[in-house]
Amino acid sequence: MRVSVVGGSRIDEATADTARELGRVLADRDHTVVTGGLGGVMEAVSAGAREHDGHTIGILPGYDRADANEHVEEAIATGIGHARNGLVVLNGDAVVAVDGASGTLSELGYAGIHDRPTAGLGTFDAPHVHAVETPTDAVDYVESRTL
Amino acid sequence: MRVSVVGGSRIDEATADTARELGRVLADRDHTVVTGGLGGVMEAVSAGAREHDGHTIGILPGYDRADANEHVEEAIATGIGHARNGLVVLNGDAVVAVDGASGTLSELGYAGIHDRPTAGLGTFDAPHVHAVETPTDAVDYVESRTL
Amino acid sequence: MRVSVVGGSRIDEATADTARELGRVLADRDHTVVTGGLGGVMEAVSAGAREHDGHTIGILPGYDRADANEHVEEAIATGIGHARNGLVVLNGDAVVAVDGASGTLSELGYAGIHDRPTAGLGTFDAPHVHAVETPTDAVDYVESRTL
Amino acid sequence: MRVSVVGGSRIDEATADTARELGRVLADRDHTVVTGGLGGVMEAVSAGAREHDGHTIGILPGYDRADANEHVEEAIATGIGHARNGLVVLNGDAVVAVDGASGTLSELGYAGIHDRPTAGLGTFDAPHVHAVETPTDAVDYVESRTL
Repeated sequence: MRVSVVGGSRIDEATADTARELGRVLADRDHTVVTGGLGGVMEAVSAGAREHDGHTIGILPGYDRADANEHVEEAIATGIGHARNGLVVLNGDAVVAVDGASGTLSELGYAGIHDRPTAGLGTFDAPHVHAVETPTDAVDYVESRTL
Repeated sequence: MRVSVVGGSRIDEATADTARELGRVLADRDHTVVTGGLGGVMEAVSAGAREHDGHTIGILPGYDRADANEHVEEAIATGIGHARNGLVVLNGDAVVAVDGASGTLSELGYAGIHDRPTAGLGTFDAPHVHAVETPTDAVDYVESRTL
Repeated sequence: MRVSVVGGSRIDEATADTARELGRVLADRDHTVVTGGLGGVMEAVSAGAREHDGHTIGILPGYDRADANEHVEEAIATGIGHARNGLVVLNGDAVVAVDGASGTLSELGYAGIHDRPTAGLGTFDAPHVHAVETPTDAVDYVESRTL
Repeated sequence: MRVSVVGGSRIDEATADTARELGRVLADRDHTVVTGGLGGVMEAVSAGAREHDGHTIGILPGYDRADANEHVEEAIATGIGHARNGLVVLNGDAVVAVDGASGTLSELGYAGIHDRPTAGLGTFDAPHVHAVETPTDAVDYVESRTL
């Protein structure tokens, strides 16, 4: 399936490690990674997925596909700015959030709007966000809710 | 100024009373009320504002201006669905959230993205949301942060 | 009714005169003028409408309401870039195009998509665009198709 | 490169043949086909591309990836309705239009806005649209302007 991974664009090394590991687990289980295509969690999870030959899609806020980080295989430009946040969520069958600030909060809102099973790794608390401890737990959870 | 009011579309009578009172207070202080134009909090706050001769704008998800509740003076159709949530927030100088579900959560995210002072009445908890007890407190708070 | 006026953002003096006159005629007949809120035809028609006490709405591509020209009374920020072109058309009951380049062409497309009666003053040729000679003819035409 | 193909959603057999042939030529030359993901020209060109092992992306107006025709390999849901027309154009390096109605006209406008080399096969006339006679001519033209 496709899993949207949302999270902070400015992150510390530990968070980057978590996101990279999440990408590896998703790739190992043949899931496509969908992100917002830029830096931070978006880049780290895409890098991890590519390390394990996973497929990555990046849905960008701007007009230029070249804004995508180098680990995005299929870059989609939208030109609709922050309104693209909903599209990142919409294009996954499930969502994993890692860390994050206001952009991530908007995406967790969209996860609820579009009724996507959602796992959270050190992110905001919301009724529909299932908090987990590890990347593997996150993938186990969203798989259990969709497969 | 313009104040975006976001919140639940299906609400109980007590929440409707709170939203209506919020509309009256905003109108009394000459603020324009911006909402998503539909039912629940959007309708109640617009009704309250109109009772006290306030101005109301509704930014709709669909293509048809006629979808707006009857208390919206200036209806703006967008046709962009849930992506309009960001526009509701963007068109206020500050935000007040009343109750609410996932749509409201996305709007609180946008309030952070666009750096809008935000007061919350019985809504989600987030770092940039200042929880208040009454409509008057909400308006006092957002005025103190913008004027 | 509301009339969306679309057209070039960089125009010569004669085109500006036409747009300004169009704004005056629309205001005289109590129609609200909806534009993209920026310069050129958008500004001239809004200026003309305001000279005759008409109401003007500007739907902007960017995040900042302050981008609107000074003749826009109700500025709506969208932040969705060129995707806002459809919203300009959608928020009128009819469309008048004056001059224009590619942006205007996209808006004429939206006029057809949303089935808006459309008059053209020195603009592109398309099956659903009724070419007219003067601002008064343009308003006569769109009134005849909507009232 | 990526080539956006826009055109009518309700088409006759001859137009479908043209679109299918266009898809085959694009695939043979290793270009990815980007469309709006639905029926008519979008479906025929994607089918042609897939016959010759080309890659196809479909950018949909609705919320559901399952709306894509079966020849779309990478479906992107947007949920922004007709505002997705600009995204179809934006995600190609060049544009070929085949036949078409108002939606296509809006996309030709976006082709101009985003400065994409554009070939037209039996479509609208506009200053930046280069009219050609055959699918091969169309691909030759856009290649000559981008490679």
